[in-house]
Amino acid sequence: MSVVEPASAQLMNGTALARETLDRTAERARKLLAETGVRPCLATVLVGDDPASVTYVAMKRRRSAAAGIESRHLPLPGRTTTAELVAAIRALSDDPTVHGILLQHPVPAHIDERAAFEAIAPAKDVDGVTMWSFAAMAFGRDDGFVSCTPGGIMRLLDAYGVDPAGKRAVVVGRSPILGKPMGMLLLARDATVTYCHSRTVDLSSVVATADILVAAVGRPEFIRGADIKPGAVVIDAGYNPGNVGDVDAAGAGERAGLLTPVPGGVGPMTIAVLLDQTVLAAERVAAVAASTAVTSTAAAAR
Amino acid sequence: MSVVEPASAQLMNGTALARETLDRTAERARKLLAETGVRPCLATVLVGDDPASVTYVAMKRRRSAAAGIESRHLPLPGRTTTAELVAAIRALSDDPTVHGILLQHPVPAHIDERAAFEAIAPAKDVDGVTMWSFAAMAFGRDDGFVSCTPGGIMRLLDAYGVDPAGKRAVVVGRSPILGKPMGMLLLARDATVTYCHSRTVDLSSVVATADILVAAVGRPEFIRGADIKPGAVVIDAGYNPGNVGDVDAAGAGERAGLLTPVPGGVGPMTIAVLLDQTVLAAERVAAVAASTAVTSTAAAAR
Repeated sequence: MSVVEPASAQLMNGTALARETLDRTAERARKLLAETGVRPCLATVLVGDDPASVTYVAMKRRRSAAAGIESRHLPLPGRTTTAELVAAIRALSDDPTVHGILLQHPVPAHIDERAAFEAIAPAKDVDGVTMWSFAAMAFGRDDGFVSCTPGGIMRLLDAYGVDPAGKRAVVVGRSPILGKPMGMLLLARDATVTYCHSRTVDLSSVVATADILVAAVGRPEFIRGADIKPGAVVIDAGYNPGNVGDVDAAGAGERAGLLTPVPGGVGPMTIAVLLDQTVLAAERVAAVAASTAVTSTAAAAR
Repeated sequence: MSVVEPASAQLMNGTALARETLDRTAERARKLLAETGVRPCLATVLVGDDPASVTYVAMKRRRSAAAGIESRHLPLPGRTTTAELVAAIRALSDDPTVHGILLQHPVPAHIDERAAFEAIAPAKDVDGVTMWSFAAMAFGRDDGFVSCTPGGIMRLLDAYGVDPAGKRAVVVGRSPILGKPMGMLLLARDATVTYCHSRTVDLSSVVATADILVAAVGRPEFIRGADIKPGAVVIDAGYNPGNVGDVDAAGAGERAGLLTPVPGGVGPMTIAVLLDQTVLAAERVAAVAASTAVTSTAAAAR
């Protein structure tokens, strides 16, 4: 009979951090409304009626309302073409009363998702999905928006005092809105970053070098606990059926120093960053309007 | 007395590959001119009179002429402001007779280089410096342009039969137009990619894992030969005063399987890719014009 060691990893409480983040977001939304009359507005676009997507969008809209953010919902039929979707998103990009745009993804297979994403104006890309936003993350700009899940992970690291500088970070997964931007955000914070993926040979030996490990592949318990470096910070960005992450949670719990639970880790932070960035988008518009008003007043006074 | 082993690494001849590439580029330029009347045109923009930059631009213009590419030179005074430079580049972006735009860099310190780069239309960004081009490389698109030095390195790898898939690649350096796109191009070809930089701890141990090593830091002989994995492919993208690369060439020669010399390795390929992409840009414009003409003719015939 084997003796099971007690779990040693401290859990990173994404639910609590998301609540704190949303409280501050709601306070900023209230302040903006009081000072400028502007209520931040997030447009949500949903193509088709995939049940999971319907649920996600409904949750985002509820959280928006709770944070004092107006949500404008645009449901489109599943047969919508790429051209129609692009036109609908461009209209939202041009609408001055909309501050942020979320296209719920994945979209139906017949749609060119990238073309749809690129119809989002960078200044309204609060979900961080455009090519411009990706490059802005990679180049360390502070005038863009981050992809929400990687952005939420960076906030978790900060909240738990994990400084990526000089650390070895391993990102498993290379999707355009999760793995790739995750690596770029860690690199911008001076981690030594390795990207792993389905073609990586001897993944275990790479995982074993990670001071910070981010699993973002969407395969249940893909990362074995035994491969984790003792004391590592393990971020599980996977969310597979049955509340199972991409990391063997039991095994990781015995070796990691810090570990995000599934659920209650990364997931809640994703929505918190989305809404936080929606308010930021509105604040930026208001700041520009205010500086223009000051300039006009000064000109009129001359 | 120690016995010096003979150098074992095969040198990757960038001069020869660049010549072959430029021959094919010239042939394509000839064909395009004969078939469509369009001569590819590269606009070169130079701010100030830094001697090295003057030399580089002159070389690029000579090579353009030799390849049948028109070169239009725009020299601007060193006191040019960011706004003036952006306006000048935008004018070239809007000029239908210009197919590619090269802003010689670095620009003087008072100029916002990024703003100037972003004034280049993505369809004319044959030097691969815009944020759009970076994201296009990262996302594996084939309708953009690659940064010329990383693009030249990928062609060297191909020419010498090096398939990055499944290999461990280490990129030392993370600049926006060299290290960062280099890693993304290797990742798009399925390498397991690690970014190292000035804040990397224990660089030697990371370098030692590289099947493919790209040194792009601009520090003479920064990479020690003793750290190189025996048989590795070593790409030296450094070019320091006195024809010295970023890699200890003597030490690397004893351990690497393939090695780019300095000079005559990466350098010549950079210009070859620039001109190759200039012709590609013109070919793309001609293809669009041809398909439009076909459509118009078909409409007229109806």
